[in-house]
Amino acid sequence: MSGTRERLVIIGGDATGMSAASQARRLRKPEELEIVAFERGDFASYSACGIPYWVGGDVEDRDDLIARTPREHRERGIDLRTRTEVRRLDVPGKRVLARDLASGEEYWTDYDKLVIATGARPIRPPLPGIDAPGVHGVQTLGDGQALIDALRRTEGRRAVVVGAGYIGVEMAEALIRRGYEVTAVNRGKEPMSTLDPDMGRLVHDAMTGMGIEMVNDAEVTKVLTGDDGRVRAVATDDAEYPADIVVLGLGVRPETTLAEEAGLPIGENGGLLTDLAMRVRGHEDIWAGGDCVEVLDLVSGRERHIALGTHANKHGQVIGSNVGGGYATFPGVVGTAVSKVCDLEIARTGLREKEARAAGLQYVAVTIESTSRAGYYPNAAPMTVKMLAERRTGKLLGVQIVGREGAGKRVDVAAVALTARMTVEQMTALDLGYAPPFSPVWDPVLVAARKAVTAVRAG
Amino acid sequence: MSGTRERLVIIGGDATGMSAASQARRLRKPEELEIVAFERGDFASYSACGIPYWVGGDVEDRDDLIARTPREHRERGIDLRTRTEVRRLDVPGKRVLARDLASGEEYWTDYDKLVIATGARPIRPPLPGIDAPGVHGVQTLGDGQALIDALRRTEGRRAVVVGAGYIGVEMAEALIRRGYEVTAVNRGKEPMSTLDPDMGRLVHDAMTGMGIEMVNDAEVTKVLTGDDGRVRAVATDDAEYPADIVVLGLGVRPETTLAEEAGLPIGENGGLLTDLAMRVRGHEDIWAGGDCVEVLDLVSGRERHIALGTHANKHGQVIGSNVGGGYATFPGVVGTAVSKVCDLEIARTGLREKEARAAGLQYVAVTIESTSRAGYYPNAAPMTVKMLAERRTGKLLGVQIVGREGAGKRVDVAAVALTARMTVEQMTALDLGYAPPFSPVWDPVLVAARKAVTAVRAG
Repeated sequence: MSGTRERLVIIGGDATGMSAASQARRLRKPEELEIVAFERGDFASYSACGIPYWVGGDVEDRDDLIARTPREHRERGIDLRTRTEVRRLDVPGKRVLARDLASGEEYWTDYDKLVIATGARPIRPPLPGIDAPGVHGVQTLGDGQALIDALRRTEGRRAVVVGAGYIGVEMAEALIRRGYEVTAVNRGKEPMSTLDPDMGRLVHDAMTGMGIEMVNDAEVTKVLTGDDGRVRAVATDDAEYPADIVVLGLGVRPETTLAEEAGLPIGENGGLLTDLAMRVRGHEDIWAGGDCVEVLDLVSGRERHIALGTHANKHGQVIGSNVGGGYATFPGVVGTAVSKVCDLEIARTGLREKEARAAGLQYVAVTIESTSRAGYYPNAAPMTVKMLAERRTGKLLGVQIVGREGAGKRVDVAAVALTARMTVEQMTALDLGYAPPFSPVWDPVLVAARKAVTAVRAG
Repeated sequence: MSGTRERLVIIGGDATGMSAASQARRLRKPEELEIVAFERGDFASYSACGIPYWVGGDVEDRDDLIARTPREHRERGIDLRTRTEVRRLDVPGKRVLARDLASGEEYWTDYDKLVIATGARPIRPPLPGIDAPGVHGVQTLGDGQALIDALRRTEGRRAVVVGAGYIGVEMAEALIRRGYEVTAVNRGKEPMSTLDPDMGRLVHDAMTGMGIEMVNDAEVTKVLTGDDGRVRAVATDDAEYPADIVVLGLGVRPETTLAEEAGLPIGENGGLLTDLAMRVRGHEDIWAGGDCVEVLDLVSGRERHIALGTHANKHGQVIGSNVGGGYATFPGVVGTAVSKVCDLEIARTGLREKEARAAGLQYVAVTIESTSRAGYYPNAAPMTVKMLAERRTGKLLGVQIVGREGAGKRVDVAAVALTARMTVEQMTALDLGYAPPFSPVWDPVLVAARKAVTAVRAG
C-alpha cells in the first residue's frame, strides 16, 4: 500500500463479493481504493439459481447465467483473480494467503479491509458410492455443465433426485423436461420441508400427478454401482431405486472453513455472525455476506442460515456501500422463498408451525382455497393459502401458498406485512389491486387474513 | 316492529348492500334482526367489473357474473326486493318510501338501522345525440346485455369508445376481440389519466400497437346520427370518427340523490361522508358504503371517490359487522388499481405527481425498466416502474407500473408499503420472493426503490 490508497480484498467472486466490489468501486476511485477479488472458480457473478433451468433446457446457454464476465469486472477497475483460492486468513496480520490453482504458486496479500463471501457448499453425505460417476451436484456452472454433458451421453432414462427441497423439485422438473423417468427420494414426511406437511402434501400430490415418483420418509443409505463403476441405483433401508443419473439436492451449508480457522465468530447454524452493517462481529475491518453468513429472522428474532441469491446481492450492496464510505444496513429477513415445479407454484414467508413453536410463539393456523383471478374469468387457477397469526395479538406470523400460475408472488404481500409487523386484522383492510383478470374481489391473501381474524378472536 | 326485533333496511342490493346483509345475518338471527333490501334492478350481487370481459367473450354467460342470486339471498333470510326503487328517505321518521317498479305501488317501510348502498351512476354528458340507438353504457348487466345484443345485430365494424380510463381501455379490448376497428377518444393528454402522462404514454403506444386508434386531447361534442336515427359517428371540435357502435367509458359519480334530499353530509367529491365504522357522519343509525361514499386516502390525508368492487365488498363487510353487533372499521385506501388491455398490464397505487402536488407534498420521481423474470428466463417480460418518494423523509408516495404478464400485481407490494408508511430506503431491504421464473434477483419494485433512495439523498 502506498500513501493513503487502501486495499480492499474480497474472498469469493460471486453475488456478494462482486456486488460489494462494484458498489465500492462506484463510491471510491481506483486511486483511493484498490480492489482485489479472489475467486476459486473460472466464473464470477453467475446465477447458481439458474442452473436447474439451464439443465432443463429453459435457458439455452451457460453464458446467459453470467451477469458480468471476469473481463468486464477487470475493465471496471476490479482486480479479479479467478482460479485463485484463498488458503489462509491471517487476521492479526491483516493478510490472506492465495494460491494460483493453475501454477500452484502461493502468495500473501495485505488488506486494509476484507470481505468474506465464500458462499456455501452442498451437503454431500459420506455414503458408499456417492463419488461414483453419474452422481451429480448442481452448485457451480461446472457442475451444471457436467450434468448436461452426462445427460447427453447417458444411455438410459432413469433419474433419482435425492432431496425434495427447492433444488430437488426444480431438478425433478428439469429431468422430466429432459425426458427422464424421475424418482425423488426425500427424508421428510413430505416434499418441501420449508412448508408445513399439510402444504407439502399438496406439492407431493401435484408432483405425483406430473409423473414423478415421490418417495418420502426415506433416507438414502448408499449409492450402488455397476460393473463399470457407474451408478446403477440408489438404496434406502427399505428399497432400491434404479438410476442412470443421480442428482443431489440436499441443500447447502455455509462455507466458513477459512473464517473458522481464523477464529471469526460462527453462529449455531454454522454461518458467520455479522452486525447490521454486515461487519463480522468484533472486527472493524472485516465484512461478510451471502451464503456464508447467518441472517436475523425478523419474525422469530433468531439467526438463520438462508442461501439465496437475492440476499447475497443485498449483502454485497450493503457491504460495498459501507466499505466505500457510505452507509447502509441489512435489517434482516422474513424468510420468503418461492419456487415452482412445472406449473405448480410454491411460496412461503415468515414462520411455519414448527418454526413458530420453536420460537416460543403460540399461534392460530388457517387454510383457505381461492383462485388467482375472479372465478368467472378464464384460467382462474386454484390456490391454497395457509396463514399463521399469533394468539392474542393477532400478529401475522407466516404465509404458505401452493397453487398454479399467479399464486407464488402473492406471498410478497405477506412478506411486506410481516416486515411492517401487521396484524391479520390490519391486513383485511389492505388495498390490493383488484380487477377480474388479476384477482377475485377479495384477494386470496385477504380471504386467509379474514379467516385468521376469526380464529384469533376464537382462540 | 314487534318486541325487540329490529329491522335493518338496505338501499341497493349490490356488493356493499348484500355483503352487509350477509354479514349481519351471520351475526344475528332472523328473530333478532329483520333484513329488508331494496334493489332497483333485477339482479343483486353481480360483478359490474366483469362486464367488459363478458362483452369481450372471455366470460361466456351473464350468470357467471352473479355471485349470488336473489333467491339464494332470500333463502338465507334476507328479504330482498328486486325491481323496487327507494324514492324517499325520511331520516327523522326513520322510514323509506319504496316503489314496486312492476306494479307502481308505493309504500313506506320503517327502519331501526339503515344502510345506503346506492352505488354510482355513469357520467353521461348531455350531448346532442347521446341517447341515440347505438350509444351504450356498461354499468349494469342490462347495459351489458344490450351491448352484446347490439354487437350481434349491428352491421358494420367500427366502434368508438369515449374515454380511455379503466372502463375505456377494457372496452377497447373487448371490442377488438369482437373484431371491431376501435377508436378511443379521450379528453386527457394520454390514456389512463390515473397514471402520470409519461406512464400513460406507454399505454398509448401499446394500444396503438394493438391496432386501436388513439385520439387524445379530444373532447366529444356530439354524437351524429344517420337517417335511421342510429349513431353514425362521434364528433369532436376537430374531427368526426365514424361509428356503428359507441361505448361510453367516462367514469362514474356517486349516486347520492336520495341522501342529498334527506340532508345527509356530502363531501367535495360528491360522495357521502362516513366515519371509520362506515356510519354516515352525525347519524347513529345510518351506514353507507361502496361507490356512493368518499373514502380516506391514507397517503394524501384527503377524501376521494373511488368506485371499485373490492372497496365496496370491504365496506359491506364492515357495515354488516357493526350492524350485527360486532366491531370493524375501514381505515381508508391507498389508491391501488390494476387493469389490462390485451396483454398490457397497468397498475398504480398511492399518489401520482399531480396528486402529490395537490396534497402539498414535495417529492422525487424515478422510473426504471426491468423484467418480470430473471433476464435469462423464457418469457421475461419488460416492465416500467415509476416511483414517487417524499423529499427529505424518503417516504414512499406512489408507484405506477406498466408492463406485460406478471407486472400488474407487483403493485401490491407498494400498496402494503404505503399502508405501513415505509420509506423507500426501508423498501430496498424487503424480503420479496426470488427465483428465476418469478423475478430478477432484484425485484423491479426494489430496483425502483434503490433509484428513489439515490434521488432522495440528492434532493
